[in-house]
Amino acid sequence: MAQPSSSSKPVVPLLKDELDIVIPTIRNLDFLEMWRPFFEPYHLIIVQDGDPNRTINVPEGFDYELYNRNDINRILGPKASCISVKDSACRCFGYMVSKKKYIYTIDDDCFVAKDPSGKDINALEQHIKNLLCPSTPFFFNTLYDPYREGADFVRGYPFSLREGAPTAVSHGLWLNIPDYDAPTQLVKPLERNTRYVDAVLTIPKGTLFPMCGMNLAFDRQLIGPAMYFGLMGDGQPIGRYDDMWAGWCVKVICDHLGLGVKTGLPYIWHSKASNPFVNLKKEYKGIFWQEEIIPFFQSATLSKECTSVQKKKKK
Amino acid sequence: MAQPSSSSKPVVPLLKDELDIVIPTIRNLDFLEMWRPFFEPYHLIIVQDGDPNRTINVPEGFDYELYNRNDINRILGPKASCISVKDSACRCFGYMVSKKKYIYTIDDDCFVAKDPSGKDINALEQHIKNLLCPSTPFFFNTLYDPYREGADFVRGYPFSLREGAPTAVSHGLWLNIPDYDAPTQLVKPLERNTRYVDAVLTIPKGTLFPMCGMNLAFDRQLIGPAMYFGLMGDGQPIGRYDDMWAGWCVKVICDHLGLGVKTGLPYIWHSKASNPFVNLKKEYKGIFWQEEIIPFFQSATLSKECTSVQKKKKK
Repeated sequence: MAQPSSSSKPVVPLLKDELDIVIPTIRNLDFLEMWRPFFEPYHLIIVQDGDPNRTINVPEGFDYELYNRNDINRILGPKASCISVKDSACRCFGYMVSKKKYIYTIDDDCFVAKDPSGKDINALEQHIKNLLCPSTPFFFNTLYDPYREGADFVRGYPFSLREGAPTAVSHGLWLNIPDYDAPTQLVKPLERNTRYVDAVLTIPKGTLFPMCGMNLAFDRQLIGPAMYFGLMGDGQPIGRYDDMWAGWCVKVICDHLGLGVKTGLPYIWHSKASNPFVNLKKEYKGIFWQEEIIPFFQSATLSKECTSVQKKKKK
Repeated sequence: MAQPSSSSKPVVPLLKDELDIVIPTIRNLDFLEMWRPFFEPYHLIIVQDGDPNRTINVPEGFDYELYNRNDINRILGPKASCISVKDSACRCFGYMVSKKKYIYTIDDDCFVAKDPSGKDINALEQHIKNLLCPSTPFFFNTLYDPYREGADFVRGYPFSLREGAPTAVSHGLWLNIPDYDAPTQLVKPLERNTRYVDAVLTIPKGTLFPMCGMNLAFDRQLIGPAMYFGLMGDGQPIGRYDDMWAGWCVKVICDHLGLGVKTGLPYIWHSKASNPFVNLKKEYKGIFWQEEIIPFFQSATLSKECTSVQKKKKK
């Protein structure tokens, strides 16, 4: 029997019943039309931010559940205050109500990017590949992901480390509008990311990174509870640090548990820069705060009793 | 006045009087013909391995000095035993006799590679760019080298770390024949590296990597004395770990001193795989050895009194 070529659509999409796609939004989800070939087989969890009386249109054919603020308040009661209002950080409510092992989350201004050959990039498929194959947090491989076709561990890579570590997080990147802070946006208003770097790599143990929530997948069982996106938006002093907060927590915990965090492929096409003046207002206090909080995370250590993301030290 | 385009040859080559090219060899250096447009302005230090009575032909027009075993014995006297015999590790003699600030070393089976647009890659120019611009060892930037044109630090990168750290080492990669160990060569005899990853990245502080000496540049003033390539070849139990040894030492010292080590671009074209059976014989004992020695380097700490690569702790 002929094997399907790698470019043809697989008969059963990878992890079809084990992954939810979480989308925070305030608008009609027309962007899903472009993603239809890749997302339609999956279940969507839509977290509606802002006015709960507004109707969000979801293109036909998608299988979804939608939660607005009234739903969040009803389900969480007094704890609803843990979920950000008027901020895409509200997406982490979706991570919580999911029952699946894996989550992919994407912003509604992210479109399908093309690889250098002009082919549409199935971002979800690449994230799944990243999550299903091991990471290499303990030693750097100069040819990047050693498990990828056409690559391997190079000379001098310890054999005892070639089994790798389970992957907890896959952090994807962005073509067109890069994920810059307000000061960089102000200084480089015209900068666009056009460089397609054909690599996936593990962020080494002991190294923090700026985790962006725009195009992100993770293993809920391994790291889910740490994927709490910091409280931002209405009534909060800081914005645009929700995903960063989660990233710092996640990386320290993954390092402690011996889990891997990958970054690189897949790219999405980020269509529109947010307003740098609005962003500066949101970020302003965070710019000072991160200088204090990052050294804390860099030196944080966890007890040996903490053998999973849920387990805490006994008192 | 018209600016020269970035692709035209600069009038004065970068670091012309501050960089030596070190080449270990046992054969005529015909491979230099291909490198002529890029290497001719620079001074070469050729370290002739094997029979000192053999004449090594160097193509006309190159400015070079050549040392054979007789020269090494004469110059170093009893200390000549520190320089490997019948092993490309002898190249570190060239690092020693150089008076320049920067070294680029390349194997004589490495040719000019082409980038995806089909243009010849000036490997030396890219190494110089890597060395002259800062590294980011303390925090990972997801868009890779933030100092590169079209890139920057992403949202969430601490502003206090954007000055970067001085770069001590630039480790380049290889298209065609990847730098695999003997077991991998045996298992994957036909594997070729065809993936051009358009990135330069800093290997984070605290992470070791397998440093290959095939296509390597460094700042002699910052890290030179640590670039001693371990004793291999005639009379030694282990081969093919000379550059690895230097890489472990260099990385631990760079981490201690707050210096950066980069890997990625530039690629060279590695023309011919060495014999995996011969390699296995050389590597055999090293395979066990590295499993013990790497944990040593991973936990090694240096005294605060060691404020340069030369300075040692007072007794």
